[in-house]
Amino acid sequence: MNGARALIRTLADAGVDTCFANPGTSEMHFVAALDDVPEMRAVLALFEGVATGAADGYARMADRPAATLLHLGSGLGNGLANLHNARRAASPMVNVVGDHATYHARYDAPLQSDIATVARNVSSWVVRPQTPSGVARAAAEAVAVATSPPGEVATLILPADASWGDGATPVAPIEPTPARDVPDDVVATVADAVSSGEKTIVLCGGSALRTDGLRAANRIGNATGATVLGETFPARLQRGAGVPALDRLAYLAEFAAMQLEGARHLVLVDAKAPASFFAYPDKASDLVPSGCAVHILAHATDDAIGALEALADRVAPGTDPVLPEPSRPSAPTGELTAESVAQALGALMPDDCVVVDESNTSGLWAPGATAGCPPHDWLTLTGGAIGMGMPMATGAAVGAPGRPVINLEADGSAMYTLQALWTQAREELDVTTIVFSNSSYAVLDLELSRVGASDPGPKARSMLDLTRPDLDFVALSEGCGVPATRASTGEEMTAALRHALSDPGPHLIDAVIPRAV
Amino acid sequence: MNGARALIRTLADAGVDTCFANPGTSEMHFVAALDDVPEMRAVLALFEGVATGAADGYARMADRPAATLLHLGSGLGNGLANLHNARRAASPMVNVVGDHATYHARYDAPLQSDIATVARNVSSWVVRPQTPSGVARAAAEAVAVATSPPGEVATLILPADASWGDGATPVAPIEPTPARDVPDDVVATVADAVSSGEKTIVLCGGSALRTDGLRAANRIGNATGATVLGETFPARLQRGAGVPALDRLAYLAEFAAMQLEGARHLVLVDAKAPASFFAYPDKASDLVPSGCAVHILAHATDDAIGALEALADRVAPGTDPVLPEPSRPSAPTGELTAESVAQALGALMPDDCVVVDESNTSGLWAPGATAGCPPHDWLTLTGGAIGMGMPMATGAAVGAPGRPVINLEADGSAMYTLQALWTQAREELDVTTIVFSNSSYAVLDLELSRVGASDPGPKARSMLDLTRPDLDFVALSEGCGVPATRASTGEEMTAALRHALSDPGPHLIDAVIPRAV
Repeated sequence: MNGARALIRTLADAGVDTCFANPGTSEMHFVAALDDVPEMRAVLALFEGVATGAADGYARMADRPAATLLHLGSGLGNGLANLHNARRAASPMVNVVGDHATYHARYDAPLQSDIATVARNVSSWVVRPQTPSGVARAAAEAVAVATSPPGEVATLILPADASWGDGATPVAPIEPTPARDVPDDVVATVADAVSSGEKTIVLCGGSALRTDGLRAANRIGNATGATVLGETFPARLQRGAGVPALDRLAYLAEFAAMQLEGARHLVLVDAKAPASFFAYPDKASDLVPSGCAVHILAHATDDAIGALEALADRVAPGTDPVLPEPSRPSAPTGELTAESVAQALGALMPDDCVVVDESNTSGLWAPGATAGCPPHDWLTLTGGAIGMGMPMATGAAVGAPGRPVINLEADGSAMYTLQALWTQAREELDVTTIVFSNSSYAVLDLELSRVGASDPGPKARSMLDLTRPDLDFVALSEGCGVPATRASTGEEMTAALRHALSDPGPHLIDAVIPRAV
Repeated sequence: MNGARALIRTLADAGVDTCFANPGTSEMHFVAALDDVPEMRAVLALFEGVATGAADGYARMADRPAATLLHLGSGLGNGLANLHNARRAASPMVNVVGDHATYHARYDAPLQSDIATVARNVSSWVVRPQTPSGVARAAAEAVAVATSPPGEVATLILPADASWGDGATPVAPIEPTPARDVPDDVVATVADAVSSGEKTIVLCGGSALRTDGLRAANRIGNATGATVLGETFPARLQRGAGVPALDRLAYLAEFAAMQLEGARHLVLVDAKAPASFFAYPDKASDLVPSGCAVHILAHATDDAIGALEALADRVAPGTDPVLPEPSRPSAPTGELTAESVAQALGALMPDDCVVVDESNTSGLWAPGATAGCPPHDWLTLTGGAIGMGMPMATGAAVGAPGRPVINLEADGSAMYTLQALWTQAREELDVTTIVFSNSSYAVLDLELSRVGASDPGPKARSMLDLTRPDLDFVALSEGCGVPATRASTGEEMTAALRHALSDPGPHLIDAVIPRAV
């Protein structure tokens, strides 16, 4: 068999049975081989950033990698921003980037470029097999790398002749490296810190943010008085009624500093030491308070939940976590605002849903309004590269079949990767997209004043303004084949959301809220 | 003044007075400083690929660089595909990529990435000044590098603290390196070859494809019997009635090989030796016939038109070129096809227009149908990274004020960077976009059989199919604020095009043609 078929067979045998694809000529043998491997589902994206963001969303929900299929360096470039987010999320993923035939590179054909250096930005494992027989081996290694904790974007650059050449055979799955157990002495040291009586913060991130980790962390906090916080932008946070509540470290450094103020111990559980998202004139980037000792309970490659449970059993033996009661806000009425959109969401959120949150400033009220809703997963923008929401919702719906997906989407961010809606329609995915239409890059209005530019002129202001013309998200959505409604009042929002959640398949609601700039 | 203001002042003093921007927080001081430099026009793009493609289109038409403003490595990634095309077009451009403050990098904040390695894919000149005073110097150098022949994408990575810090002063423009004159002995050697009586091809590219170069090349061909060809995908080709006609080297290697068959001499004039666009099993990549001598009349850094004129004066002294007469096809009737769309274009093409051609397979008939139209410029996809058309049309309209722009756009490619329509509406640009809606990646259908996959299965076929659902380009265009019409017959196409060309501002025509796959 040819390299392409052995590649797909190897991926499927290793449990990678979904490929988000935007192929070109150099990938045609891969495409032709898709039908030879019945287990492999191929999902077409109209833009590579949709494919990579969808693979990230899939991985976060399925806890296993999808493949992507991208067209040479330019296709990888188009997918780079969402690969960056996936890297920050530690999402397992196998990128397959088609390349010219090995012997063709010397002609510097129009699409020739240095794929590997771009790939290394998002994946430390980059391999370019030179022969058909090397392709399947590389694929098996890629899956093992991708699925070893904490999860990695592995990139396989596939020369066209390695893809079309014969003589390849599939390679059996390679076991990933298991998560490491945290040694008892580390747990004991951290136990001393959290039990010291001094102000202690337990900052949980990554793999610690599943229900079992949150239960253990909550027990630790209750027994010791330590404050448990979540990282600012989790890849996947489990929450809702029945799951211990978790405050997250604030995005704005000023607020994060207040949360951390006076701490003498900071315990990191698969989380990084707090630093501000951006640098600002005359403000510190490092948010760890002076005199605060930093303890690492679990690195990203460790069994973070196991470590939290071991710590809880030491400092809070026999206790149970405190769980939030079910509660919902009332459905909103009157003029629509970002806050009342959140109320509608809280009033109607279905059981066991997945929220993909790229609502930026408009999403401020959404976590609070849904804290007592049925248990759900909350996926956020881990890497700061906007344009992840719609692709991620697409992939999350593929990776969590049967679960409704709700995408909270800022209007500016929505315009990055809007093409994802078409894939949602094609695959009949149960995604409800709520666009917060405030007609502005509101976060930049905030940031413009934070960086010290307090009196912007008309040209500066125009760079934050999404009017002239207004974007019509109903038309844009319907143009991609996704039915859409506009809501300008709480009543309209509630009715639109109720309809969208009750009707299978994708929907979009254009939630028109007051302009921010 | 701060680094940002000195940067913008320096750019404007060097003639770079247009910036296609998609800024983020790290660029807020640049944004705030825009109002301090009245000459600088800032054009907002909703996606970085629009900004970079627009800067390419601007440069091709204005013959001087625009700046881009991009947000860190992710923004650069989003803009990479069109920067790749710009590099292949040798378009002068100054990328400004905002970065974290120099001291912030060590915290590995979410948006931290290795910007320089990605930038080096598209620009050999990449500089990251560390201080405010270094920023303006770097900007002046960037403009000089960008504008030295053949034209280059220069990338200035701008750390936030170098942008906001004080103590900077503008730097005076630096002279670019001039184009080199081709030595007489090179011209004499080529003159011997073209006069040898043996089959000779003169392959013109890059800067040779302006009217003066084409006039000289045409005289050479007429006098010697040499065949003059243009490169397959020119950055900017001047053509129409009154400009010597030029056949281009075919995209399909089979046809290109026929054009080149039997040649004993190949003269390259700012063009690369022919190679196939992609590699194919059992087909040669190198298209230079066996036994054919390759002569380089002008490198990309040479004065190609001067060299052609010197050669013409040697081998065709005192002659005039043969110029096509004005002619137009009749307006089409009946069912709309890609060919009849081309007829409508030929029937109505206005004086002095700019055609941006990303029509791929559907555009086959457009050059022929417009060969006798009034003189115009034809801009093509130089680097093979689709998604250039709508951004390039946007930038071409900014760079060639007063000239109508017509964008021939394939439906699959249109979905890459559709956001450009919004910028066309905002800037009230006179762009008419014709989308060839054949509901497929038709080029891939062709390529699938060319690579030897002659009987694709349903999954493979679905990867080329843009139905389920059909894209509604009228809705998508109106959603971006650009009025749009659908045309399904020749009569409707003609009426829609006549209206679009007579009414100022952007328009889109969804030309529904038979499905290709």
